[in-house]
Amino acid sequence: MDLYSRHINKLIEELSGLPGIGTKSAQRLAFHIINMPKERVERLANTMIEAKENVRYCKECFTLTDSEVCPICASAGRDHKTIMVVENTRDLAAYEKTGKYTGVYHVLHGAISPMLGIGPNDIKLKELIQRLQQEIKEVIIATNSSLEGETTAMYISKLIKPTGIRVTRIASGVPVGGDLEYIDEVTLLRALEGRTEL
Amino acid sequence: MDLYSRHINKLIEELSGLPGIGTKSAQRLAFHIINMPKERVERLANTMIEAKENVRYCKECFTLTDSEVCPICASAGRDHKTIMVVENTRDLAAYEKTGKYTGVYHVLHGAISPMLGIGPNDIKLKELIQRLQQEIKEVIIATNSSLEGETTAMYISKLIKPTGIRVTRIASGVPVGGDLEYIDEVTLLRALEGRTEL
Repeated sequence: MDLYSRHINKLIEELSGLPGIGTKSAQRLAFHIINMPKERVERLANTMIEAKENVRYCKECFTLTDSEVCPICASAGRDHKTIMVVENTRDLAAYEKTGKYTGVYHVLHGAISPMLGIGPNDIKLKELIQRLQQEIKEVIIATNSSLEGETTAMYISKLIKPTGIRVTRIASGVPVGGDLEYIDEVTLLRALEGRTEL
Repeated sequence: MDLYSRHINKLIEELSGLPGIGTKSAQRLAFHIINMPKERVERLANTMIEAKENVRYCKECFTLTDSEVCPICASAGRDHKTIMVVENTRDLAAYEKTGKYTGVYHVLHGAISPMLGIGPNDIKLKELIQRLQQEIKEVIIATNSSLEGETTAMYISKLIKPTGIRVTRIASGVPVGGDLEYIDEVTLLRALEGRTEL
């Protein structure tokens, strides 16, 4: 759309390249940014650049962190013999929010997807296998409950089982507070299959 | 949420201050930005700063533009005696996209809202009245069909009517392609009131 400002057009173009931001949202955001105080625009811009420059992978678990080893891997209070495998740092953050998981993590940065051409070598899987040379009691696979997540879970479990290390998968089923009426059939069937004794 | 990276937390905080971006989207965006190539992050950041620094109000119609007078106001091909009053530059852009409007615009940068404490002096209304000292044939009020938009339209029409200049309001009704079933009652009543002979 021609807005008669080259600068606004360029900003809308840049913003609409971001995930989840369509043309309409990019437009709304661009106009908002132009109306923000100059200092706030500069702070936003600099925060992006600084984050990009300073954030790196933890050399143990590959989560995104500011230091060489992330605070979880560096903590003596965590159980370093239990590794939860997640697809990305957001999933790690979701489990950390529960406050109940005391083990460490391994962040794959993706999931195996033949459709998208993402193979085992495109995610941090070699790095997981390498970690298993230390004394590990259990690997909990917490990839998403999607086709890619399940494929990845299956692949990892086949890889680890021969080592004798315990491999588990988080449960799928009806979310807590979920209304059965609005839940898809696949989830309902999963919940049925995974039923436990009361 | 503590993500164990000060830089990511700061970025999420900055992003979630933008309109329409909640914590979840801010998180998704922040991780996306960190995974973008360094050059793209810098380009995005610089585009924001440049837009903020270079975009200003057209001194005629107050739309956002890169030059002193916007291309529409500077164009000899437009009818400068017909002014369409809109709330913001996005609304101007929406009408421009139709390609059928040949007049010029006046951008209010807001609407009167007693609830939000926005009065006639907080929008570019004085500037509109000033423009009417030139020879103007018609003022088309194209503020939104919201409470604020209607209040503003009413206010402007009362202000202009004594001058003898023709004041019109864009029609409200059922959107083209709209399914009556999904349209709210107020719109349906408006459409009925505004019915035309066939």
